[in-house]
Amino acid sequence: MTIKILVTNDDGIYAEGIQFLSKVLFESNRYRLKIVAPDHERSAVGHAITMHRPLRVERANFLHNPELTGWSVNGTPSDCVKLAVEAILEEQPDLVVSGINRGSNLGTDVLYSGTVSAAVEGVILGLPAVAVSLTGGEESKDFIYAARFIRDLIPPLIAGGLPEGTLLNVNVPPGSTAIKGARATHLGTRRYKNSFDRRTDPRGLVYYWLAGDLVEGEEEENSDVRAVQEGYISVTPIHFNLTNEAVMPQLEKIIAGVGKGAKS
Amino acid sequence: MTIKILVTNDDGIYAEGIQFLSKVLFESNRYRLKIVAPDHERSAVGHAITMHRPLRVERANFLHNPELTGWSVNGTPSDCVKLAVEAILEEQPDLVVSGINRGSNLGTDVLYSGTVSAAVEGVILGLPAVAVSLTGGEESKDFIYAARFIRDLIPPLIAGGLPEGTLLNVNVPPGSTAIKGARATHLGTRRYKNSFDRRTDPRGLVYYWLAGDLVEGEEEENSDVRAVQEGYISVTPIHFNLTNEAVMPQLEKIIAGVGKGAKS
Repeated sequence: MTIKILVTNDDGIYAEGIQFLSKVLFESNRYRLKIVAPDHERSAVGHAITMHRPLRVERANFLHNPELTGWSVNGTPSDCVKLAVEAILEEQPDLVVSGINRGSNLGTDVLYSGTVSAAVEGVILGLPAVAVSLTGGEESKDFIYAARFIRDLIPPLIAGGLPEGTLLNVNVPPGSTAIKGARATHLGTRRYKNSFDRRTDPRGLVYYWLAGDLVEGEEEENSDVRAVQEGYISVTPIHFNLTNEAVMPQLEKIIAGVGKGAKS
Repeated sequence: MTIKILVTNDDGIYAEGIQFLSKVLFESNRYRLKIVAPDHERSAVGHAITMHRPLRVERANFLHNPELTGWSVNGTPSDCVKLAVEAILEEQPDLVVSGINRGSNLGTDVLYSGTVSAAVEGVILGLPAVAVSLTGGEESKDFIYAARFIRDLIPPLIAGGLPEGTLLNVNVPPGSTAIKGARATHLGTRRYKNSFDRRTDPRGLVYYWLAGDLVEGEEEENSDVRAVQEGYISVTPIHFNLTNEAVMPQLEKIIAGVGKGAKS
């Protein structure tokens, strides 16, 4: 049985990462690919969806492989996955793969990530999903290495039967020849300082650029951040079980009686 | 000690919800408010942040209360909170309150919510945070009731000392006089069908509108969806502990040996 993969990203359909990924997956002859991705870069869009304007879909052609079928969408990565599954594709895919993102998606930064949010949309729709990012280096061999890792990860992932609602967030460090292997990791923390750069424009008006230097901290043993620092591919299982069960008794006390005066 | 509150939303700084909220909080004389909110509606932006263009900040005035200090930002709700805390406000707020959103933010839909994402940005910055939405009805008295509930929730919330990293997601049903009280709830599930409406424009080109009818399902006992259906205010503690610890042993098996062939 050929595994049907929906490929998407947030760097745009013609970005190097998605092109290398689809080329390697296609050439393995193990997968049937459909590519549905944004028409241009949509980084840091988080889990945005487009509600207030219509979405347009165009066929996209790939010089490196005319047999590949692609559609570009004037929307976010989440839009692409939703639209692909519910309107564009004739058959339901078996898996969503989002990437290869140029730059890491580690720790708390995954909340801002368009790459990860496409995978989240996959799991919301009931599909297994993988997000993949290259944490640095942009040489072709780095992208190819990351793509091959995904190629080889898919069969055990499908066979391994992770529970519904869990996606894998993969971060591949650069320097493919020196990579020591893959590690199952936890999401670490990412802190920034000096987040905004305040400037004045030629007309004397103030504007702000999001900047921010990463604060290097002590990373816990098994975090994703530490794994890539130490030369491993990080694979983190992510779910969206957002309710904090542990604080329920405390919360009950906090809300007891609140609102009695709200009607007056 | 006066509690310092940063107020924001995703419907835009001049929306009714944030105006009623700030009016009620201000008039209680218990809080010091700073309002930093988007210059126009930014619904369904999820946790988007603006990286590729500069942010502009303008002073905003409120006719209902000239003493209130506000800034409008040409960015997302997350941008507003980040920019407020790191660049605009002279003093660190004690709390972030986001809302009152026009329309519910329940179950899995919170992932798309700009209102909730502003509160998420608060907890990322280490602040307690509350997101508040009105699940239906848009009469003034509904907004005022919801605002009064928040006014009365804040002191026990600050005193109750929820652990860092947890926000409260509050959904208030309409019909203030009939509301039965508040419930501590879990995030439920929200499923949609027929998500896209396919149309053809006057030039014969296809476009898609995100539509989608909510599928009414059996809601578990203590879900947020069910609480508001039954006439209660829902208060859900949300955290972003996204690592799925339970699947680690299974994941170790899945990745064992993957990538050995990736270097070739």
